[in-house]
Amino acid sequence: MFVRSAKPSRLASYSISLQFRNMITAQAVVFSKHGEPKDVLSTHTYEIDEKNVPAGSIVVKTLGSPVNPSDINQVQGVYPSQPEKNTSLGTSEPSAVGGNEGLFEIIAVGDNVSKFSVGDWCIPTNVNFGTWRTHALATEAQMTKLPNPEQSKAAGGKKGLTINEGATISVNPLTAYLMLTHYVKLTPGKDWFIQNGGNSAVGKYASQIGKLLGINSISVVRDRDDLDSLIKDLKEENGATQVITEEQNGSKEFGPTVKGWVKETGGEIKLALNCVGGKNATGVARKLSNDGLMLTYGGMSMQPVILPTSLHIFKNITSSGFWVTKLLSGNPELKKKTLAQIVQWYENEELKVAPSQETKFDGSDLAEFYKRGVANSKSGKQLITY
Amino acid sequence: MFVRSAKPSRLASYSISLQFRNMITAQAVVFSKHGEPKDVLSTHTYEIDEKNVPAGSIVVKTLGSPVNPSDINQVQGVYPSQPEKNTSLGTSEPSAVGGNEGLFEIIAVGDNVSKFSVGDWCIPTNVNFGTWRTHALATEAQMTKLPNPEQSKAAGGKKGLTINEGATISVNPLTAYLMLTHYVKLTPGKDWFIQNGGNSAVGKYASQIGKLLGINSISVVRDRDDLDSLIKDLKEENGATQVITEEQNGSKEFGPTVKGWVKETGGEIKLALNCVGGKNATGVARKLSNDGLMLTYGGMSMQPVILPTSLHIFKNITSSGFWVTKLLSGNPELKKKTLAQIVQWYENEELKVAPSQETKFDGSDLAEFYKRGVANSKSGKQLITY
Repeated sequence: MFVRSAKPSRLASYSISLQFRNMITAQAVVFSKHGEPKDVLSTHTYEIDEKNVPAGSIVVKTLGSPVNPSDINQVQGVYPSQPEKNTSLGTSEPSAVGGNEGLFEIIAVGDNVSKFSVGDWCIPTNVNFGTWRTHALATEAQMTKLPNPEQSKAAGGKKGLTINEGATISVNPLTAYLMLTHYVKLTPGKDWFIQNGGNSAVGKYASQIGKLLGINSISVVRDRDDLDSLIKDLKEENGATQVITEEQNGSKEFGPTVKGWVKETGGEIKLALNCVGGKNATGVARKLSNDGLMLTYGGMSMQPVILPTSLHIFKNITSSGFWVTKLLSGNPELKKKTLAQIVQWYENEELKVAPSQETKFDGSDLAEFYKRGVANSKSGKQLITY
Repeated sequence: MFVRSAKPSRLASYSISLQFRNMITAQAVVFSKHGEPKDVLSTHTYEIDEKNVPAGSIVVKTLGSPVNPSDINQVQGVYPSQPEKNTSLGTSEPSAVGGNEGLFEIIAVGDNVSKFSVGDWCIPTNVNFGTWRTHALATEAQMTKLPNPEQSKAAGGKKGLTINEGATISVNPLTAYLMLTHYVKLTPGKDWFIQNGGNSAVGKYASQIGKLLGINSISVVRDRDDLDSLIKDLKEENGATQVITEEQNGSKEFGPTVKGWVKETGGEIKLALNCVGGKNATGVARKLSNDGLMLTYGGMSMQPVILPTSLHIFKNITSSGFWVTKLLSGNPELKKKTLAQIVQWYENEELKVAPSQETKFDGSDLAEFYKRGVANSKSGKQLITY
C-alpha cells in the first residue's frame, strides 16, 4: 500500500512507524458531497511512501495551484465535468480532491519511468486530477512535463517559468490561443478579431497572442473612471490594437469608425470571442463580416447569447461554444503543441502572465487556505503556493 | 431590338405595325423605387418579337407566379438580395420586375438553343429574374427545365406537376430538403430533428421530407382550439412523428417525454430548424443532443435567437443560419439535384404541395393582381395563374 490514511488502525500505525523516514505526510483538500466550498471542503491527511514508488509512477510535490471559477462550480456541483469520488486516499467516504490546475515538481520516480526525472516540473495531463494538495502519487501518463527554470535556460530561454505561469497555464492561455487558431483562418497583418471582456485574464492573453500572431484586435471593455489608463494598459502592455467601450460597441453611430479601422488593413473581422453574453454579445456579433464566427466561452453577465435572426440568415454568422476541457480531452497532441508554444513565449518574455494573488501555505490546515481563496476569488485570481 | 416599349416613338410605332402578327404584348409588374407595393408597383407594357428570337434565347409565357414574403421585402427595399434596376424593358426610369418564383412554358426558341423545345416547362435558374409578368425573353441559361405533365407521364410518373407545384418549388421545398440533408448526418430510423413553425409551409415540407428520408421529427406548434385536428393533420397528412405545443416545448416537466421518444429509436436529436426565434427557439435548442446544430431560416416572432451560454459551452450546440438563395447561388449542381428529387416526389404523389390561393389573371391590369396578392398574403400564399 503506497497511499495510506493518516488515521490508520493500530496495526497500520505500527507499520508506518517502522517506515517513518520514507513517508511523506500529505494533505489534500477533499469533498465528499457538493455544496458551498466553506461547508463541504475539508483537509484529509494521508501518507505517501516515497521510497517504494510503484513502477510507472511518480511522486510529486505541489509548487502552486490556483482557485478557478470552474473549480468552485465543481465543488458546488453545478459544473458538467466532475472528478470521480472514491476512497483511494483512505477517506472514510468516497471523496474527490478539489482543483484542476497546478504546477508540480517530481520528487521520486518508480521503475520504468522514462518521461520524468527527479527535479522535473509537470502539470496534470487532464482535468479532474485534484490539484489542491501538497503532494500526489501519480502515474506517468497523468502528468505532462514542463521545463523547470534550469532546463529553460539551458535551452536558450531568457528566463524560466514562474510558479504562477506554470500553475495557470492549462486554462486561460490555452483558451485564448486555441480560440484564435483552431477555428477560423485569420490572415496576419490584415484580419481582425473582436472580443468582449477585453480586460479579463483570457481577454488579455487573447490580445497579446493576437499581436504575437500578427492579428488585429478590438477589445470591448466596460466604461469606468480610469478608462484612459485601462486603454493605455491594454494597448501598450497587452497587445490590443483598439479598445472600445460597451456603449461604443452597442452604438450604430460608432459602427463606421470600426469599419474604417478594418478597411485600413484590408482585412475582415472574421472572429468574435464572447465571455459576457446579452446585448454585449449581440454588439460584438454585429461587427463580424459575412460568414463570421462567434465563439462563446463564458457568460459573465448571466445573460444568454442573443443573435438577431438577420445576422444568421443574411450574414451567415455562426455562433458556437468553446470549452478547452472538451476540445483537448480528445486531442493530447494539440494540447502538447499549444503548451509548447505558450511556454516558449513565456521563456522569451513575449507573453505576460495574468497576475495572481499568491498565498504561501504554512504547513497548517490546507483546506482553510483554499476556502479563503474561494472567498477572495472575486477580488482576483488566487494562487496557493508551497 | 427584340424587346420594345409599348409607348414607342412614332418611328418605332410604324415599325411595330409592320410586324404586328409576330409581336406579343407583354405586361410586367415593375418598380423603380422602393416602398409599399401598393404605392410603387405599376404595370409596364412592352412587346416581344416571338418570330425573331435571338440565338441562344427563348420566349416564355408565365403559367403562374406567387407572392412570397421576400418578394414583398424586396419591393420595400428591406431585403438584402435585390434585382438590378435597368431600362431594358423600355421603362422611362431604371426599373426592376417583381417576383422571384414562377413557372413558365416555352413558346419560342432562338437558334442554337439546345436545352429547350417549345412546350417545355421551366423556372428561373436564379433569384431576381422578375417573375411577375405575362411573358419574358430569356437566355437559355436563365431558365432551368422542369418536366411538363406529358413528359412526367411519359417518364412513368403517376402525375405531372401542377402549376402550384412548379411555381412554388424553388424556395420552400428546397429549403426544407437542404436543411435536412446538407449539414448534419441524420441516421434513418434512429435520428430526429425538431422544428418550430411545424404548421408553416416549410414546416410541413420538412416533416413530409423527414418521413420520406426515414428521419423522425418533432413539430412544435402554437396551442389553439382545434389542436387535436392540427396534430392529426400534421401526423397523418404531413409526416410528423410527434407534434408538441409551444408550452410543452418550454416546459421542463415535458422534457422526459421527449427524451423517452428519442430513446425508443436509439437515436439523437441532432438538428433543430428555427423560423420563430425568441423563447421558442431556446426551447427547441435545449432539446438538441450534444454537438447538435440549430439552423435559423426565419424569425416569425420578430424576436432574436436566444441561446443560454451553457448550451454553447457545455453541450457544444452550434447556431447557424440558412438562406436558400445564398446556398444555391454558388452551387447550380446542388440545385439541380435537389429539384430533381422534389419533382420525383411530386410525380409519385409522395409529397403534398402547400396550398396556395390561386387567382387567374384576366388580361386587365397585371399590377393590380399582385397588389391584391400582397394585401391578401397574410391569409395564405397567393398565386397568380395565367
